[in-house]
Amino acid sequence: MNRIITISREFGSGGREVGKRLADALGCAYYDSEIEAGLARQMNLDQGYVARAIGNGILTSIPLHFGRTISSPSLYKQQVDILVEKQKLLKELAAASDCVIVGRAADVILSGNDPLKLFVYADMDHKVARCQQYEEAGRLSSPRQLEREIKRVDARRAQYHRMFSDMRWGDKTGYHLCINTTGLEIKQLIPHLAGYAKTWFELHRK
Amino acid sequence: MNRIITISREFGSGGREVGKRLADALGCAYYDSEIEAGLARQMNLDQGYVARAIGNGILTSIPLHFGRTISSPSLYKQQVDILVEKQKLLKELAAASDCVIVGRAADVILSGNDPLKLFVYADMDHKVARCQQYEEAGRLSSPRQLEREIKRVDARRAQYHRMFSDMRWGDKTGYHLCINTTGLEIKQLIPHLAGYAKTWFELHRK
Repeated sequence: MNRIITISREFGSGGREVGKRLADALGCAYYDSEIEAGLARQMNLDQGYVARAIGNGILTSIPLHFGRTISSPSLYKQQVDILVEKQKLLKELAAASDCVIVGRAADVILSGNDPLKLFVYADMDHKVARCQQYEEAGRLSSPRQLEREIKRVDARRAQYHRMFSDMRWGDKTGYHLCINTTGLEIKQLIPHLAGYAKTWFELHRK
Repeated sequence: MNRIITISREFGSGGREVGKRLADALGCAYYDSEIEAGLARQMNLDQGYVARAIGNGILTSIPLHFGRTISSPSLYKQQVDILVEKQKLLKELAAASDCVIVGRAADVILSGNDPLKLFVYADMDHKVARCQQYEEAGRLSSPRQLEREIKRVDARRAQYHRMFSDMRWGDKTGYHLCINTTGLEIKQLIPHLAGYAKTWFELHRK
């Protein structure tokens, strides 16, 4: 069975960097926005649209302006199709090779593959500072705006996760290792996390 | 500043073993029941009594039998004294040398020492199996009995922690690394955890 590592993460905690660096250290595939890019190609849809459908869960209506929405059965069907295809794609990727997958409820969807499930989190101040560091020049949000954005994204992630599992997103019981990145440089942690992951797979699959 | 590692742990998860082995790997002091032994000596009290006072928090009454209790101001004072002395002792130990301290709300009491705070947990089946393995011969509890005991001990730990902090015992936000030991041999994880701890202190104290 391939060795699958799933990374769930709070927005701004550096989970994506943990995933990318861990995949590099372990010499395995890494999937993040590649998932939406692959689906968009397969389904001949815009990648941004696919990402929003996955990020927001199924929407039966699209707001036009306050108090007015459009809804359509075909829109609903398309969004269900995206989620179905996403699950198929995740399973294909997990069957193809060892890999690290960030987000996308892969921890639940791939539970049959016995993945090592990591959760990456941090204190709010650290997440805000990290977001500021990565923000595009010219678009400088205030710490308060960033805090709101972080909470909004995480609430959406939790909601998305609930579509697939009763287990509460971020509840440590659903993960094998929960890593608080507050005040740390992720790069320096990777050798230890990679070693931990290798040992975990050796022990867990005895 | 000395390097202090605090280990909070679910009963049966192997947190004590993590602490002992980590202290050995890092070549530093290890404190667990040594705390109560030290206090009992200092205060000229029975070690078991001190352990119960610390384990249960302050009791203003002692049950005699159903519906009857005794309570006394001097008993209350003695129990407060034990907790005060325990805090002093923890601070003395943390000031004396690098160390690993298991339980005793050291994560909160020593927060001024900027400790690396670990939380060790596991699935219930794993904890029950681990308890059975360590049970004295001749005292074989059923899995259901052990599960009740595990929940009882953990509820007491959570309650004890609440005396010192608003932070919920076991809530990952209060810790730097949460380690799920389900299906693992702790011994094999130690080199990676020791490496992680060393790097954490290097990065966190820059």
